Amino acid sequence: MEFIIIYITTSGTVEARNIASELVSRGLVACVNMYPIRSVFMWEGEVNEDDEVVLFAKTTRNNFEPVRELVRSTHSYELPAIVSWDIEGDPEFLEWIRTSVSH
Amino acid sequence: MEFIIIYITTSGTVEARNIASELVSRGLVACVNMYPIRSVFMWEGEVNEDDEVVLFAKTTRNNFEPVRELVRSTHSYELPAIVSWDIEGDPEFLEWIRTSVSH
Amino acid sequence: MEFIIIYITTSGTVEARNIASELVSRGLVACVNMYPIRSVFMWEGEVNEDDEVVLFAKTTRNNFEPVRELVRSTHSYELPAIVSWDIEGDPEFLEWIRTSVSH
Repeated sequence: MEFIIIYITTSGTVEARNIASELVSRGLVACVNMYPIRSVFMWEGEVNEDDEVVLFAKTTRNNFEPVRELVRSTHSYELPAIVSWDIEGDPEFLEWIRTSVSH
Repeated sequence: MEFIIIYITTSGTVEARNIASELVSRGLVACVNMYPIRSVFMWEGEVNEDDEVVLFAKTTRNNFEPVRELVRSTHSYELPAIVSWDIEGDPEFLEWIRTSVSH
Repeated sequence: MEFIIIYITTSGTVEARNIASELVSRGLVACVNMYPIRSVFMWEGEVNEDDEVVLFAKTTRNNFEPVRELVRSTHSYELPAIVSWDIEGDPEFLEWIRTSVSH
């Protein structure tokens, strides 16, 4: 079985909490770590900054698509960052991830 | 030689500091970045939140197991998150990692 | 096309902002997330700690080298951490990264 971290940007603490709780309570991810950050990006030709909260969600690879769909359907942004990468780790913790997700 | 980031959750600043200092002073990792976060997870059927501190430890792949053993033997949790992923990078920085770890 | 996160440590908010703005405005990365952290490392045989700011920069793999060169040429450290890892993700977001970078 393959395990991943899904990295999701949100507009702030309230949205981060809502999405994280939804993902966890539906069993799409095992747990979420929320990080307060400051983002830098181009907007209408100018460098812009904004406060955001990033979610690191630990789950199995087959859950990426359902997570993507849920986030896109509820997010305040038209196109939030939803990226992922493969992880390895302590076998017991990975087993906990596997048994924590519903699919 | 393969290089990794090891991602470890801890209960707070004191535990994070203790584990990070132990890993660095024993030469199991080259350096540790500590992140204050808020976690969301299920506990006894309910969505729960808690403050934690995450460690990003940079090291070589062969050090994952000794790091895992040390963290599991000293950690306050029964099953902390200890996951990892492969990294590439600036050759000079990777060489610094290689020469900073004792194995 | 391959996409990556580039992980860069900086000495603090001012340096983080300067480097992030330079990378974004030159089209070397699509966006940067800045994280306030505390680092633990060995210095002259002693365990040391310091405040830093980490940049997570999202871009395409071919931009790693130009990012590395720019960071090394402007950074206050002699040898900052500049590492990277592969990411996958929401196809629309990855396409946004692709069209946001100039090469």
